[in-house]
Amino acid sequence: MNDPDRHPQSFAAWHEGIFLPRQAFAGLEPPYSNLRQAKTVVLPVPYDSTSEWRSGSRHGPQAIIDASQYLELYDFELDREIHKVGISTLPQVEPVLSSPQDMIKRVYEVVKGLIQNEKFVVLLGGEHSLSLGAVRAFKEAFPRLSVLQLDAHADLRDEYLGTKYGQACVMRRILELCPISQVGVRSLSWEEKEFLTQNKLRPLYMSDLASNAASVDGIVESLSQDVYVTIDVDVFDPSIMPAVGTPEPDGMSWRQVLDIVESVAIHKHVVGFDLMEFCPGEGPSSCAFLLAKLAYRFIGCAVAEKAK
Amino acid sequence: MNDPDRHPQSFAAWHEGIFLPRQAFAGLEPPYSNLRQAKTVVLPVPYDSTSEWRSGSRHGPQAIIDASQYLELYDFELDREIHKVGISTLPQVEPVLSSPQDMIKRVYEVVKGLIQNEKFVVLLGGEHSLSLGAVRAFKEAFPRLSVLQLDAHADLRDEYLGTKYGQACVMRRILELCPISQVGVRSLSWEEKEFLTQNKLRPLYMSDLASNAASVDGIVESLSQDVYVTIDVDVFDPSIMPAVGTPEPDGMSWRQVLDIVESVAIHKHVVGFDLMEFCPGEGPSSCAFLLAKLAYRFIGCAVAEKAK
Amino acid sequence: MNDPDRHPQSFAAWHEGIFLPRQAFAGLEPPYSNLRQAKTVVLPVPYDSTSEWRSGSRHGPQAIIDASQYLELYDFELDREIHKVGISTLPQVEPVLSSPQDMIKRVYEVVKGLIQNEKFVVLLGGEHSLSLGAVRAFKEAFPRLSVLQLDAHADLRDEYLGTKYGQACVMRRILELCPISQVGVRSLSWEEKEFLTQNKLRPLYMSDLASNAASVDGIVESLSQDVYVTIDVDVFDPSIMPAVGTPEPDGMSWRQVLDIVESVAIHKHVVGFDLMEFCPGEGPSSCAFLLAKLAYRFIGCAVAEKAK
Amino acid sequence: MNDPDRHPQSFAAWHEGIFLPRQAFAGLEPPYSNLRQAKTVVLPVPYDSTSEWRSGSRHGPQAIIDASQYLELYDFELDREIHKVGISTLPQVEPVLSSPQDMIKRVYEVVKGLIQNEKFVVLLGGEHSLSLGAVRAFKEAFPRLSVLQLDAHADLRDEYLGTKYGQACVMRRILELCPISQVGVRSLSWEEKEFLTQNKLRPLYMSDLASNAASVDGIVESLSQDVYVTIDVDVFDPSIMPAVGTPEPDGMSWRQVLDIVESVAIHKHVVGFDLMEFCPGEGPSSCAFLLAKLAYRFIGCAVAEKAK
Amino acid sequence: MNDPDRHPQSFAAWHEGIFLPRQAFAGLEPPYSNLRQAKTVVLPVPYDSTSEWRSGSRHGPQAIIDASQYLELYDFELDREIHKVGISTLPQVEPVLSSPQDMIKRVYEVVKGLIQNEKFVVLLGGEHSLSLGAVRAFKEAFPRLSVLQLDAHADLRDEYLGTKYGQACVMRRILELCPISQVGVRSLSWEEKEFLTQNKLRPLYMSDLASNAASVDGIVESLSQDVYVTIDVDVFDPSIMPAVGTPEPDGMSWRQVLDIVESVAIHKHVVGFDLMEFCPGEGPSSCAFLLAKLAYRFIGCAVAEKAK
Amino acid sequence: MNDPDRHPQSFAAWHEGIFLPRQAFAGLEPPYSNLRQAKTVVLPVPYDSTSEWRSGSRHGPQAIIDASQYLELYDFELDREIHKVGISTLPQVEPVLSSPQDMIKRVYEVVKGLIQNEKFVVLLGGEHSLSLGAVRAFKEAFPRLSVLQLDAHADLRDEYLGTKYGQACVMRRILELCPISQVGVRSLSWEEKEFLTQNKLRPLYMSDLASNAASVDGIVESLSQDVYVTIDVDVFDPSIMPAVGTPEPDGMSWRQVLDIVESVAIHKHVVGFDLMEFCPGEGPSSCAFLLAKLAYRFIGCAVAEKAK
Repeated sequence: MNDPDRHPQSFAAWHEGIFLPRQAFAGLEPPYSNLRQAKTVVLPVPYDSTSEWRSGSRHGPQAIIDASQYLELYDFELDREIHKVGISTLPQVEPVLSSPQDMIKRVYEVVKGLIQNEKFVVLLGGEHSLSLGAVRAFKEAFPRLSVLQLDAHADLRDEYLGTKYGQACVMRRILELCPISQVGVRSLSWEEKEFLTQNKLRPLYMSDLASNAASVDGIVESLSQDVYVTIDVDVFDPSIMPAVGTPEPDGMSWRQVLDIVESVAIHKHVVGFDLMEFCPGEGPSSCAFLLAKLAYRFIGCAVAEKAK
Repeated sequence: MNDPDRHPQSFAAWHEGIFLPRQAFAGLEPPYSNLRQAKTVVLPVPYDSTSEWRSGSRHGPQAIIDASQYLELYDFELDREIHKVGISTLPQVEPVLSSPQDMIKRVYEVVKGLIQNEKFVVLLGGEHSLSLGAVRAFKEAFPRLSVLQLDAHADLRDEYLGTKYGQACVMRRILELCPISQVGVRSLSWEEKEFLTQNKLRPLYMSDLASNAASVDGIVESLSQDVYVTIDVDVFDPSIMPAVGTPEPDGMSWRQVLDIVESVAIHKHVVGFDLMEFCPGEGPSSCAFLLAKLAYRFIGCAVAEKAK
Repeated sequence: MNDPDRHPQSFAAWHEGIFLPRQAFAGLEPPYSNLRQAKTVVLPVPYDSTSEWRSGSRHGPQAIIDASQYLELYDFELDREIHKVGISTLPQVEPVLSSPQDMIKRVYEVVKGLIQNEKFVVLLGGEHSLSLGAVRAFKEAFPRLSVLQLDAHADLRDEYLGTKYGQACVMRRILELCPISQVGVRSLSWEEKEFLTQNKLRPLYMSDLASNAASVDGIVESLSQDVYVTIDVDVFDPSIMPAVGTPEPDGMSWRQVLDIVESVAIHKHVVGFDLMEFCPGEGPSSCAFLLAKLAYRFIGCAVAEKAK
Repeated sequence: MNDPDRHPQSFAAWHEGIFLPRQAFAGLEPPYSNLRQAKTVVLPVPYDSTSEWRSGSRHGPQAIIDASQYLELYDFELDREIHKVGISTLPQVEPVLSSPQDMIKRVYEVVKGLIQNEKFVVLLGGEHSLSLGAVRAFKEAFPRLSVLQLDAHADLRDEYLGTKYGQACVMRRILELCPISQVGVRSLSWEEKEFLTQNKLRPLYMSDLASNAASVDGIVESLSQDVYVTIDVDVFDPSIMPAVGTPEPDGMSWRQVLDIVESVAIHKHVVGFDLMEFCPGEGPSSCAFLLAKLAYRFIGCAVAEKAK
Repeated sequence: MNDPDRHPQSFAAWHEGIFLPRQAFAGLEPPYSNLRQAKTVVLPVPYDSTSEWRSGSRHGPQAIIDASQYLELYDFELDREIHKVGISTLPQVEPVLSSPQDMIKRVYEVVKGLIQNEKFVVLLGGEHSLSLGAVRAFKEAFPRLSVLQLDAHADLRDEYLGTKYGQACVMRRILELCPISQVGVRSLSWEEKEFLTQNKLRPLYMSDLASNAASVDGIVESLSQDVYVTIDVDVFDPSIMPAVGTPEPDGMSWRQVLDIVESVAIHKHVVGFDLMEFCPGEGPSSCAFLLAKLAYRFIGCAVAEKAK
Repeated sequence: MNDPDRHPQSFAAWHEGIFLPRQAFAGLEPPYSNLRQAKTVVLPVPYDSTSEWRSGSRHGPQAIIDASQYLELYDFELDREIHKVGISTLPQVEPVLSSPQDMIKRVYEVVKGLIQNEKFVVLLGGEHSLSLGAVRAFKEAFPRLSVLQLDAHADLRDEYLGTKYGQACVMRRILELCPISQVGVRSLSWEEKEFLTQNKLRPLYMSDLASNAASVDGIVESLSQDVYVTIDVDVFDPSIMPAVGTPEPDGMSWRQVLDIVESVAIHKHVVGFDLMEFCPGEGPSSCAFLLAKLAYRFIGCAVAEKAK
């Protein structure tokens, strides 16, 4: 017997067409899933220690990767075989439970390593506080970074349940690093409202989107050239995304989110994005599939753009 | 140790910031949850003995109250801290199982007591037949009462499964008391169709809403000054409210329901409302959250209106 | 005691109004459920051996029939008591597991027998490959048959997982028999895209429907006079139909599907239809109810049309 | 085409080996499922209007019948093909919801009709209060009837939640008709304890069974010759029967229940039995299968015994 | 209207027999539920931030309290109306998410306050790490405290996932405070095995219980006079307690646990106990009921003992 | 950046202690998970096309592997670090759906390859028919092979649902290859009973185990030196293994199965084993954990034995 661990190609030959691919995103196999060649890296982080009410976003990354096995690799709307840019799936990041800060630091370090190797990062959460780690790393590499946040909530509390680093505070911390644009907000605390007023910030509320007071162009224009996109999946309407911790009615449609994502990917330099707060046990498996398709489409738009 | 049962304020002091609020609606604490001061009273009635097919609306009230813990007290669309009007949550009414009439009578008596104390009543069911008890009490206090019913079904059968007091007959009984306006109907029995024709009644069907044959203004105009609103939650589209016994396709959106509720609350004197037939086990937890938010918004519009 | 098996009418007399109807579609009882008199026959086929990922469409037929017990027999939108055309429900077809071809052959034989007796066939799957058996039988009886396919996927692969007769290949096989029109497609493999191009075929994509590039009239015109309609229920949007194996986002609404179904039923001679790939365990019970109502409405439009 | 409704044998011939049996208990087909010839009749009653907490026993009968499709007809432990005694499955009794008494009366009337036709009755509940209807009918036919109750609870309250005819009171009402023996009790209210003491009654508690203070022989001896057996399925240990409303720990094993059932069937004249309070949604499908096998085994022992 | 908040007795009079009790443990009402008079205090702590794999023990306390509503207040095996000792249920402790230590400190402070008021503490978790807070408080009050641990795991790791205060380390930390006796262990890491050997500790393994190498008397003798009992509910066999994060096969029966609990309560001075790591979503509702009954029985044995 | 695909050790160095291991059985990492060095190979086969009733055993292998991540690598009952023998997890075998025979052939070929490389094979199903493929391969390598079957059913039908290669026929086909010993059977069809009698075969029934008519020694003695062990997981009692298609009451305990497995591993040359028919969706996650622990313990006993 040959050494299949040393020479994976001969191992592959042995079971040509017999085995299913290992659980990489989209079921990719080498060479497309090789870390070295891949432009894109999927980073799963199963951590949800500061979530309230329904927990379970720790199971989000695996559920999205599982669902992605059933994606068509060819995207006929883009008319492009997206996987050919290379998408490598890292193993899940082991949680560190001493404090939210320590976990955020771990994400920061991993993302920093990926940036140094010029990867396009797709962070799959896990809870929203982890986005802070990614943004910190990108801010160092792209000093004029701005962040586009798609979210039902502003996440602008200064402190919540005894910590400044929980999911309810993540955009307050990110705002201390760089400008943000908020889209899809439909719930605010009094404290957040005050903070927005004092800082002359204004999210695009769902009511703005409904009344056409907000346009995709306006969203794009509000951003700097280098953009990180953070998507709390509760931005979607609960009809298509009930699998979240706090499912606010009257959310965005698949098409609304896609229009923004595609336009930003075309007109800006997107450096990475994340899909956070997905709790697969709280809804049907259609939710995981929707997010897998969103991630794949986003990669298709953003990484190809970068390649030009 | 002080006597915390006698002197709740000192008890509160003892665990300042340590305990979660008791399970009152919206997680309210004294003084906002005090029965005496509160303008609004939430009345949970866990009864579903005449339901067909999928039962479980007995679990509806608790599920809505649980979900309401995660509401923001500040409603930024109304720009109002709604809870300051005072919302007291009564304990659940104990079912009486001897007959539906006996249970309806119990609801009547409790609601009558609340009316005498000038409370705005929010009844959380439980099955739809209970609304008859509330309407009886309100009709006595407001002789020119009309009832606005949001419902996928007409509920106008004369008798069903051996009783005239089951959920399928509730509006037939209410119509014997006062005028009704029906909105959102999309399923009728032959008997109901005949009854409507003979009595020259005409619900607003979903097809009317779709074709703009019905307007919010028209709905408001069809009502008398004093209005009780009864909402069978199956009026919503199953995409956002699958958690009902008979989920008819092609229902109302969040925005459609809200527009009616808000307009009625502004232009009429709403004396109380109910949310009935919610079966939390039949759908994701987003359903409970939607109903909690609907109740809170409705209180925000209706109780404030009254205050003017 | 009389012989209730021989003389069902006396048995019926014995328990007049005491027993619920047996589990026929829509809870029908004789004479409406009698096979001899009924114009329409519901054929449940609990088979899902070639499905990938989430299986469970074997449970689809029973779930639809269960839900149909709660349909109103009177359809007030059509203003018609549909059941009076007669709807008989056959027992479930026993699966044959030696190969997909053998199972397809069994469906072919049963449907052929029903056609010979001039029944309107409603096939409830089970997996999509079974439609091939029905189409074969109808093609023999109606040589100029065309097939209207409502589906999120093209199902045009030549072979998949070692067989040419799995669900992913069913329309490729049907296309070898007769022309097809595809509506609602929103996912294609590279192989399918190539095949479509080479054969100058073009499905109506969801993007066509969104942009009004496709019209209901156009769909109707694309069909021959004799039409079989095959509905993979994943054509619906996952918000109202998550209970499928591969729930693609951005699907059709209840109203969009109904408009097509009603128009085809009016302008063409529909010989039968199927509802396939429903996996009841993957979503709320609202899904089964939607499909029961769709089947009943479709019968209402199509069988009455034929009667003219 | 022949008339399959008139001549079922020719219909059977048409689809010989193609269709699955209709949903009769154990999947039986004629002649074994014919009501006229069958010694045994399965009577499903989907009613649960007086249940507390977790409802859902209305779904119990269908779940047991569904599971029974997968029974082996041959029972190798008894070495007997049980189905040959004939087991006919009636349609489900339609609930009457005006009051528990009215529903109990309906069960009484149906069972009385079956007794007049010398059937062995297997009642599938539904809630426990229905057993009162069956016992009333059997008491009339067998004046020296006694009732063996297998149950975690005594069900001896005089009134509960406003009615004397709810599930918590059923054995109090039955005791007014005939003697009872209680086995497996492991929860008592203070009122029930007092009542037992005053009436010099003593259930066999689980602790008696554990300490061998109770024997199967003793249970058999406590009964008169004509016996009706009522089984609240919560008598089983929650490890094998969690699917009940009030699952008391420390219950009976499969073997313990079977030993009693078999011994009573051998030594006494069992006139009928019931399986009550099964809530299929509260546990895995193994629960339904266990009950289907229990019912089949019980029929095997009891009906054959009677035949001697 | 009187002021029901000020004068609860008149409020009670108003709805005499109409309302269900508030959600206190066992559904108790005043005076039995009054904090001042009650000997026993139930302390629910919904915190699970350091749990691995399946989370959800945050929902444990509410599920146990919900199930306890259906307990009989009279325990006929003890022949005692346990609730008369008084059982007050505190509101849920609000989590603090800055670090596990901070949360443990919060539990410590609350328990300390309860000890100062001479309460018997029943802690409902929540994850096992919280027991450290309770033990710290009891150790200060009872310097010769020992801890009896019923658990499938030793929880003796020094550090895990970056913290010394997670659930996997809790007994290592407790052992630094006072002696422990471990019962029911059936899984050990290599590190734990080494630690046990070096420290000459030896748990009672399940194999000891099976082979009668361990006796209840031996367990009791291993403890000092003042005992705190910590129960990780995974000590039970998964057949009756699947609702845990790591369900090890071959666990303890209801009777085995009860024998130990009752014997310790009789022969020692139990100062409090906890039920930890219950994840209600992972198993049927029978699990919550079992734990409610266990807690009530334990109170019955332990608090009465103290009263002598 | 180094090439992590070529030099995994440097990649490992980069994220030392940050990432969770990939999803190999027991979470093993190189060198223990390397295919070349590992004595044991875990072969997951997600195929269930011939299953009746509840399907879903296709999800069995992944669920067992997921659960195995939480095993302690050290087995303190065996006092052995089992993983050091090396356990490599192959990717899942891709189903071939043309016919059961084709799929069985695929398993045969893969297992044959593993035998040629002297691996100890652990097959994770998937449905029971796949065992035939494994036995064929082992029979070629070990001409005097016998098969020990732990199963609730005999699986000795000659044909079922149109095929001789379905799960209900697998042991009939295996018996055509080599002798078998059946343990735990508690359900037989009449055909199977006849076949057993005619062939003078006699399974060890559960009643034999209960009455001590069967001993572990007797089971071991009935086998030849080279043994393949096939475990249909429905051999376990439904209390600990409800997650199967046909959950027969009165099954084997964890301890009973383990005693047999351990004794066979000690006294015979076990060449491989399988765990089949596990349907994770039908029961709690404790089922998956039990099977993961069983597989690991079996490897611990069998592979070490071989090593002597």
